Amino acid sequence: MQAPEDLKPLLEEILQDALTITDGKVADYIPALAEVDREHCALTVATLDGKITSVGDSTTVYSIQSISKIFGLMMAMERIGDELWQRVQMEPSGQPFNSIVQLEWEKGIPRNPMINAGAILVSDVLVSHYSTSKSALLNMVRSLCNNEGILADSRVHESEKSHGSRNSALAYLMKSFGNINSDVTEVLDHYFWQCSLTLSTEDLARGLAFLANRGVCPRSGEKITSHRDAQRINALLSTSGMYDQSGEFAFTVGLPAKSGVGGGMVAIVPDYGVISAWSPPLNSYGNPARAMAMIRNFANRLGLSVY
Amino acid sequence: MQAPEDLKPLLEEILQDALTITDGKVADYIPALAEVDREHCALTVATLDGKITSVGDSTTVYSIQSISKIFGLMMAMERIGDELWQRVQMEPSGQPFNSIVQLEWEKGIPRNPMINAGAILVSDVLVSHYSTSKSALLNMVRSLCNNEGILADSRVHESEKSHGSRNSALAYLMKSFGNINSDVTEVLDHYFWQCSLTLSTEDLARGLAFLANRGVCPRSGEKITSHRDAQRINALLSTSGMYDQSGEFAFTVGLPAKSGVGGGMVAIVPDYGVISAWSPPLNSYGNPARAMAMIRNFANRLGLSVY
Amino acid sequence: MQAPEDLKPLLEEILQDALTITDGKVADYIPALAEVDREHCALTVATLDGKITSVGDSTTVYSIQSISKIFGLMMAMERIGDELWQRVQMEPSGQPFNSIVQLEWEKGIPRNPMINAGAILVSDVLVSHYSTSKSALLNMVRSLCNNEGILADSRVHESEKSHGSRNSALAYLMKSFGNINSDVTEVLDHYFWQCSLTLSTEDLARGLAFLANRGVCPRSGEKITSHRDAQRINALLSTSGMYDQSGEFAFTVGLPAKSGVGGGMVAIVPDYGVISAWSPPLNSYGNPARAMAMIRNFANRLGLSVY
Amino acid sequence: MQAPEDLKPLLEEILQDALTITDGKVADYIPALAEVDREHCALTVATLDGKITSVGDSTTVYSIQSISKIFGLMMAMERIGDELWQRVQMEPSGQPFNSIVQLEWEKGIPRNPMINAGAILVSDVLVSHYSTSKSALLNMVRSLCNNEGILADSRVHESEKSHGSRNSALAYLMKSFGNINSDVTEVLDHYFWQCSLTLSTEDLARGLAFLANRGVCPRSGEKITSHRDAQRINALLSTSGMYDQSGEFAFTVGLPAKSGVGGGMVAIVPDYGVISAWSPPLNSYGNPARAMAMIRNFANRLGLSVY
Repeated sequence: MQAPEDLKPLLEEILQDALTITDGKVADYIPALAEVDREHCALTVATLDGKITSVGDSTTVYSIQSISKIFGLMMAMERIGDELWQRVQMEPSGQPFNSIVQLEWEKGIPRNPMINAGAILVSDVLVSHYSTSKSALLNMVRSLCNNEGILADSRVHESEKSHGSRNSALAYLMKSFGNINSDVTEVLDHYFWQCSLTLSTEDLARGLAFLANRGVCPRSGEKITSHRDAQRINALLSTSGMYDQSGEFAFTVGLPAKSGVGGGMVAIVPDYGVISAWSPPLNSYGNPARAMAMIRNFANRLGLSVY
Repeated sequence: MQAPEDLKPLLEEILQDALTITDGKVADYIPALAEVDREHCALTVATLDGKITSVGDSTTVYSIQSISKIFGLMMAMERIGDELWQRVQMEPSGQPFNSIVQLEWEKGIPRNPMINAGAILVSDVLVSHYSTSKSALLNMVRSLCNNEGILADSRVHESEKSHGSRNSALAYLMKSFGNINSDVTEVLDHYFWQCSLTLSTEDLARGLAFLANRGVCPRSGEKITSHRDAQRINALLSTSGMYDQSGEFAFTVGLPAKSGVGGGMVAIVPDYGVISAWSPPLNSYGNPARAMAMIRNFANRLGLSVY
Repeated sequence: MQAPEDLKPLLEEILQDALTITDGKVADYIPALAEVDREHCALTVATLDGKITSVGDSTTVYSIQSISKIFGLMMAMERIGDELWQRVQMEPSGQPFNSIVQLEWEKGIPRNPMINAGAILVSDVLVSHYSTSKSALLNMVRSLCNNEGILADSRVHESEKSHGSRNSALAYLMKSFGNINSDVTEVLDHYFWQCSLTLSTEDLARGLAFLANRGVCPRSGEKITSHRDAQRINALLSTSGMYDQSGEFAFTVGLPAKSGVGGGMVAIVPDYGVISAWSPPLNSYGNPARAMAMIRNFANRLGLSVY
Repeated sequence: MQAPEDLKPLLEEILQDALTITDGKVADYIPALAEVDREHCALTVATLDGKITSVGDSTTVYSIQSISKIFGLMMAMERIGDELWQRVQMEPSGQPFNSIVQLEWEKGIPRNPMINAGAILVSDVLVSHYSTSKSALLNMVRSLCNNEGILADSRVHESEKSHGSRNSALAYLMKSFGNINSDVTEVLDHYFWQCSLTLSTEDLARGLAFLANRGVCPRSGEKITSHRDAQRINALLSTSGMYDQSGEFAFTVGLPAKSGVGGGMVAIVPDYGVISAWSPPLNSYGNPARAMAMIRNFANRLGLSVY
């Protein structure tokens, strides 16, 4: 199918369809997330010609949670290069995102940077290599999204810290295997802070467009990363971006994607653009039910699978 | 990079490079495989315009082993449709290809059709739905490859049967969970037979071209499967086709691919063609070291990643 | 508490108490077991002075199932000595009795001879070292119990064979690690046959008295095994005889014991005698609820813990 | 064999035999333990008639490490009774003592109080129920051992804290399942402190004599715990006291026992006394090689198995 000139009517139809999905459960492990209105719903498509089309609450910011793993990973890859892959693998995990079992079997080497253990390890890299890892990351995100107003939500940040026992367990286990260099408390602080960044679907669509554009920001023309590294990040998102539904999402949609428990989700369409969606209720895998449905429907309607 | 008019010099160069790789170990769990000359090496590229370019032993047949899982899966998908996915998942396993641990945890439902348990389950589907599952599969393979001379190697077949204790364990465990319907002995006989099919790199390049061509055989124009199912098979190959190196292969190459312990390997390049390689010595993951290197080099030289 | 001269009133009281336990589920994985009347209940105590005191259906025979593992183990220990412990460990498993997970981790070496994998391995020893392993075992059991009428139940035997997929999986997995020497089918046939032996609570109390009497049969004065080997078998029963309740049974009762899914159970009281009970309904761990309660009450009333 | 009037010559012979064992490795995960002279060796037997017979360095104090789990457990059992068993099981683990895998599977409920996770949970009970849990425990130990000079080694305590990442991981994982009530840092501080207590073999032989004497201190006649609870603790030591060698120790010796990585070990002989040994080098299971050999030899020579 040819992409229509004006995507808005299609996006509107897809959003209305998604609103008929009424099951799913808003993340409630911390109060700050549980209070978010479950009816928020947004869908944005940014194409490489610079057009941004949105429907719903596309300028409302939300807690991007695990989607932030993409930004952290990219910074760590730029900073230490292939050395990173001595400390974290690139294989799908076949286990829940916060599994500690696999981490013990594999002697503290996380399966990939998209599961919690892997992203905590990436946080250790950032904390160890930047004097102020938070502001370095924030500056990068603001610049990519072309939005100086992007902030972390300090209430979510504090709340994560006080409910982060399992992530603490993951970090201490890696430390016991010698795979965390900095102070565990500082590493976790960075990790929780990163998860608490708040962006809108439009911010994210703009901010990740370089992954669809061979590493180059389509707005500024700036080279953010190499074509090769953009492909590598997309490969990781394809095999490991959607938790325990990564295989199913590849099978039914076929696009690199990442979700977060705040209800956000992004999919990268190489040489086309970014699809960015948000709706808080999560399915049993911890993926946002409506957001995933909207992205699947858009991709299927336009035949956007990479395979 | 633009694909050159004549691929032969490039393939020749890549094959010569691969010959410098001297480690790796020929599969020796059965005598019939152990006796194969480790110096065999072949590389074939079939493009959708009908051209087939080869270097090395590209017309010598070898035991395709796990590559046969693609043919079995396609037949089962055509025969019982989405019902198949009630009995086998589509997620990466994160475990060795013959792991029995995960099969117990997940109550006899294999993780995907590319690991042994999944392919044995597919064999059960074929045995249960075809009066003569072997000849049905053989006819399909011969037709796809346009080669009526394709045969199974009866010595390999018998040898597999008498060394198949672990696969028997997988089959009986699935049976104990009620996920095998036919007689276990018959199911395993089909499975081992299928693994013992012998094809050349040219046969395989021709036979799988429909996966790169939206389900249509580029030679005959016949629709082998739907575009959607071709994409779905490619997605499974991308997340699960290369055993415990699937993530790494996606990361470093980015193409749907499948390997076998006979030393064969194929990669699908959507809308371009098929890369087919063979060289017996296996690396520590059970993937053919030279064949994988040849495919990676060709893909990288031409920039063929789907991501 | 001093043991009373006449145990009968105490046993009667304990049996009546046990009849108030009404939950539990008769084993139903094979029809021949499912049809047993759930109301059967028997309790026998054999003391080393030769007295046998019984209440309930103490002369009715039942399928002893896993209790037969004691006889098989003793025969194998006598036959091949400490060589046995190269092929099976002596550690508690911490896993369900039919777990295949641990067997894979530990490369086909079962955790102990009281779990299914371990007893199948013991069966392989017997099949490999006796020309007619079944009649050799049967003769030993008849002699120990002083009852030439003891038989296997051929209906249970056949039924086990046709529902034994999981045990087949365990056997083939051990075979794949090179830890089964004889033909798997023959080994499983011996194992299922052994499980189908039918004895009464009185038979078992008599037959296992040597374990409470330092290896010597208190009736005949014959030395069945060394004192040391009697202690070793009792140690195995203490750490591993009651499936996933072994620790709890040691904690609450403190006697070497073994149960079977036919509802039978025996406990050894060193230098005192044997407690033998039967009642078909099983608790959630697969242990016979009433039989276990009767043994616990008798032991607690007489203060019989070894600890 | 009758116990000889004077045990000293036998103990001397056993100690000399043990000195011929030269392999094993002193615990070196913290400097304070690594520096201990590996040649220390001591053996003490305390019988219930009040006699204490020793050979070797039996008055030199050492870090009792995991042996302290017995004291902590007893205090928690006295304090909260059977409520404790809602939060920790009593089953053998079948896993290494510091395994985090099982703890995840079983949702934060440790397998038994003798593995690290279980002892950390016990520490949480003590910290939550005593205003000053350390001094309460210390007073109890001093009183049991009749030695007001007993102390914790502050250097070992600090060292454990700074090398305790894996124990931190266990504690945070339990916390994430809601099975730790107090502050994790405080709980771990108690746990590490308890492990750093220093006693001699004579102190321990004296201090644990009540477990061999039905709960009553044989010196003072004071009832320390009920007969039943003494039996229950002995049962736990029998099934779980010797890490991954618990089954083997039951099989070859047959006594309730506990070891520590400081090289200490105790065995309880009900109605006879306590065997207490110390020698720093550890075998591959983390059990003290010489101490275990001395206890095994003494028990075998006197035929002291409980089975």
